[in-house]
Amino acid sequence: MYVIGERINGMFTDAKEAIRQKDAKVIQDLAKRQMEAGASALDVNVGPAVPDAKDAMLWLVETIRAVTDAPLAIDTAKWDVMSAVIPKVPGEKILNSTKADPETAQQYVALAAQNGAGLIGLTLDADGVPGNAEKRVELGAQLITIALEGGLEMDKLFIDPVILPVNVAPKNPGHCMEAISQLRAFADPPPHLVLGLSNVSQLCNNRGLINRTYLAMAMAHGLDAAILDPMDTELMNTGITAGLLQEKMIYCDSYLEAARYGKKG
Amino acid sequence: MYVIGERINGMFTDAKEAIRQKDAKVIQDLAKRQMEAGASALDVNVGPAVPDAKDAMLWLVETIRAVTDAPLAIDTAKWDVMSAVIPKVPGEKILNSTKADPETAQQYVALAAQNGAGLIGLTLDADGVPGNAEKRVELGAQLITIALEGGLEMDKLFIDPVILPVNVAPKNPGHCMEAISQLRAFADPPPHLVLGLSNVSQLCNNRGLINRTYLAMAMAHGLDAAILDPMDTELMNTGITAGLLQEKMIYCDSYLEAARYGKKG
Repeated sequence: MYVIGERINGMFTDAKEAIRQKDAKVIQDLAKRQMEAGASALDVNVGPAVPDAKDAMLWLVETIRAVTDAPLAIDTAKWDVMSAVIPKVPGEKILNSTKADPETAQQYVALAAQNGAGLIGLTLDADGVPGNAEKRVELGAQLITIALEGGLEMDKLFIDPVILPVNVAPKNPGHCMEAISQLRAFADPPPHLVLGLSNVSQLCNNRGLINRTYLAMAMAHGLDAAILDPMDTELMNTGITAGLLQEKMIYCDSYLEAARYGKKG
Repeated sequence: MYVIGERINGMFTDAKEAIRQKDAKVIQDLAKRQMEAGASALDVNVGPAVPDAKDAMLWLVETIRAVTDAPLAIDTAKWDVMSAVIPKVPGEKILNSTKADPETAQQYVALAAQNGAGLIGLTLDADGVPGNAEKRVELGAQLITIALEGGLEMDKLFIDPVILPVNVAPKNPGHCMEAISQLRAFADPPPHLVLGLSNVSQLCNNRGLINRTYLAMAMAHGLDAAILDPMDTELMNTGITAGLLQEKMIYCDSYLEAARYGKKG
């Protein structure tokens, strides 16, 4: 399970304040704690309503890079921010994210390929989030084709079938699982399949329970990456255990600790 | 999720003592507490080393029937016990279980059909538990065919692909999920797919975590019934939430309570 830690995001109050005040310690603590909890990479999102998003993103990257060389997922919907920041990120990086419209996707694939970066591609286009599994598969296949044509290897491509909250889109979790299964089989080797997991439980009760139950279900269909909070211990334990039950590791009495140690080692 | 409560079983110390001493209150409490926790049916197993298994089973059935009319899953590997007890169980009942060898399965199907009972069929034969998914599917298909030929409808047949502990058979959880997917698609309407869930974590650490993670994963592949401990609240919450994420129910803030109330109502 490739865990992209979600906590350095201006949507969260602690990160928002730290970005506003350029408080490096808070950001670096969030980076270190997520890595210690078993993250493989860190999402970096300045949040909405930041006066200079490019400047804020560059400050975050520099601040985080001082404490970890983990891959950084530069999370912005703005092309000018993405295209300015990506060449300046030292070490491993991921573009988060592109839509599947051909012209847009080609632009992002080119930027990722030029910079040796990964790319998260959403299965949505100008028409919005698909209301079924079939359109997700079609858009995912389109992303795979554009990535291969643009010189981006499958191990650098993360397809995100876009999960919506179960309380407003009850068929959506099923559609995403179906799309994950089919897209895993579409290319050999397959791309990564990723979800912004916590969106499934937005404004629901029992958020932790819904998140970890869906993580296990989506992994059973081939999800191999997720943007989530690695400091949610029960969630991480579920992800590690789902991997055990798919023979991604062999059981030992301390398999939970072994999995976390493996991520750090 | 069709939950068959596992707790009235002589493998557990409290039930074993109650069976030995014919202590009706302990058994009736176990029956009532499992039903209140959301069970759909109750497994009834006298355990090993009981002097007269037939007599003990009949006493258990009578004792449980005094407090609930839930379907009772008569759990014995002995044909003489099964064939003597089943006709004497008032109300709904399930034979737990037959192997897939044709002569044996035909005998059990006939007994089930004659008594309007359900039947759990294991995907194992004289060669033991299959070491792959394919053989499980083959034996499951054999059970489906024998059931249909014997006049047992698919909604009365529960196919159990036989889960082994993950610490001794690491590929087994994956094989069972694959078999569940394929057997769900084999007949229309499909049979039920069931697992004796807690076996997956036998002699493992983190048993609760392993059980509930595997329940969500197997449900994602089409498992719709399980023999488990309904008094394990976290496990039941996971099963209910997995159903929510498959649109078996619509979200409301009290969906956990609504699901349990629905079972009792």
